[in-house]
Amino acid sequence: MNTLFEIDGLKIAVIGGGTGSFTLLTALKDHTSNIAALVNMADDGGSTGVLRDELGVLPPGDIRQCLVALSRAPEIRDLFNYRFDEGGLKGHAFGNLFLTALEKMSGDFAAGVKLASEVLNIAGTVEPITLTNVRLAMKSAKGKVTRGEFRIADADFQSKRPKFWLEPEAEANPRAISAIYHADMVVIAPGSLYGSLAPALIVPGIGEALRKTKAFKVYVCNLVTKPGQTDGFAVDDFVEEIERLSGTSFLDAVLFNTEMPSDDLLNRYAKDGELSVTFDPLKLKEKEYLAVGANLLAGGIWQHGSVADPLAHKRTLIRHDSKAVANALFSLYNRFIKA
Amino acid sequence: MNTLFEIDGLKIAVIGGGTGSFTLLTALKDHTSNIAALVNMADDGGSTGVLRDELGVLPPGDIRQCLVALSRAPEIRDLFNYRFDEGGLKGHAFGNLFLTALEKMSGDFAAGVKLASEVLNIAGTVEPITLTNVRLAMKSAKGKVTRGEFRIADADFQSKRPKFWLEPEAEANPRAISAIYHADMVVIAPGSLYGSLAPALIVPGIGEALRKTKAFKVYVCNLVTKPGQTDGFAVDDFVEEIERLSGTSFLDAVLFNTEMPSDDLLNRYAKDGELSVTFDPLKLKEKEYLAVGANLLAGGIWQHGSVADPLAHKRTLIRHDSKAVANALFSLYNRFIKA
Repeated sequence: MNTLFEIDGLKIAVIGGGTGSFTLLTALKDHTSNIAALVNMADDGGSTGVLRDELGVLPPGDIRQCLVALSRAPEIRDLFNYRFDEGGLKGHAFGNLFLTALEKMSGDFAAGVKLASEVLNIAGTVEPITLTNVRLAMKSAKGKVTRGEFRIADADFQSKRPKFWLEPEAEANPRAISAIYHADMVVIAPGSLYGSLAPALIVPGIGEALRKTKAFKVYVCNLVTKPGQTDGFAVDDFVEEIERLSGTSFLDAVLFNTEMPSDDLLNRYAKDGELSVTFDPLKLKEKEYLAVGANLLAGGIWQHGSVADPLAHKRTLIRHDSKAVANALFSLYNRFIKA
Repeated sequence: MNTLFEIDGLKIAVIGGGTGSFTLLTALKDHTSNIAALVNMADDGGSTGVLRDELGVLPPGDIRQCLVALSRAPEIRDLFNYRFDEGGLKGHAFGNLFLTALEKMSGDFAAGVKLASEVLNIAGTVEPITLTNVRLAMKSAKGKVTRGEFRIADADFQSKRPKFWLEPEAEANPRAISAIYHADMVVIAPGSLYGSLAPALIVPGIGEALRKTKAFKVYVCNLVTKPGQTDGFAVDDFVEEIERLSGTSFLDAVLFNTEMPSDDLLNRYAKDGELSVTFDPLKLKEKEYLAVGANLLAGGIWQHGSVADPLAHKRTLIRHDSKAVANALFSLYNRFIKA
């Protein structure tokens, strides 16, 4: 697969990392196989963190999950997410070991991702947003510096809108830049704003590509706020942060949820300080971007099909209905090209 | 791959495990893709031993190497033999982790081997000789019991022709039995007589299948003796042991080497107590089996093509020229069917 996109079919670049993008990719795969998943490379938790520390490799975890999300080979897909539960291999996802072995063997992470893509028969391509071995760092308004995505993801910032950077300075993967330029639609996936999206959006060159590309650029807004990080954020606050992190105003649209979860679910989330993201229709109407609300909420018990899936233990959750999101994205895109 | 063999082409079953069979399989692959590698399942050393101990799985090591030997996918082949050299994964061959993850995930070792066969695009099939989780055990003539293939392989038996058994008693894999019955030629590969061949030949049912099959049955004799185990063995002693371990006289032929290695090499081996296997033409002529001598020796420096190969560090060795062995086997088979 030397070309990023096939000639036919809608070309979609998805920027993310984390559960939000994995489920969205799975749903988009039903519409087109012309998907480029652009993945943040700052993950340093869990199995991925151990492999980075012990072997000095690039982080395989989010890449693995995007590969699995786009895979058309069910057996291999389950294998890639299989996590050893005993002995010296405990906690390692098999797919992480696959990518790590290939990188150690060839010295080339991108070549490893390419071979994994073939074995997994994926619908599209998965591109690390950078091939620099980086760590995420942040400084709060009060001057406190925190390093490492895993720590930052759940930290209490004790201030809003902190400063983020990568160490060492990252160079964008030219294939990721190219995907943004050649896409028909660029989707900023829902997910942890600072844990998953920040380390992708702050890579030098990504913001410029997002501003210059002729693609339709849309952000799928989160459903709930994160305590200590995005408390009280409304839809337009999330958009503002996406553009601040990218260093540029580039969004054509934001897609947000209008359906309220059940009181029971809301109460459970509220106990952890997570609240529904609000929106002010009048305020959103004045924005330069188009703000489109829809019922994007997954109903009932949110289940996963595979026993090997790391998320299978979760039950009822406030989650996007990925099929509804994918449908909404395609109809938004059609409105955009007709306008 | 539900059928063991394809309809067309010579059907060969190879019994072994260990380096001897891996190189022979590689050479046979150039002649036919109708190969069934029947692999002993008593390996408990190295990465395989750790995985068996920690995770209770069947031994992946020899299966992996047979899969690699028959693979037509060079990149994946190198990956399967890649060994991690740092951190908690140190010493594990990637292919062992692949087979282990699949067995742990599906609870079915055979299913794992099947999926690996597809990923590796192998020429033929690899069949565990048993799916019972066994250990090799032996009792010397002096009554001393030793357990574990890894320990037995290099032990000083302090007596000849000890008794061997598997714990618990093994059940033959029906597909291995079927391969012996349906083969045109069954090859007992060269290799460690007690470490690699004994644990395959003593599995109940294997001897009976070897006696009853209409296939041409040939043993490729070792080149050197092993100190403390086969000291002073000539070709006919090796044959006798093969049949004693199988519990039956079944061989149609033995193929042995007639070329002497260089004095330099012989001296180096002699320091470790390893001597060239001798043969007595007059004695061999009286046997019920056909004894065929040929120059089967690899000349010059024995090298391996892949940096990922676990044997790449070895240099000049007394080794079979696998291509010469494969050619000799095919011409022997042709003599057999014309006779």
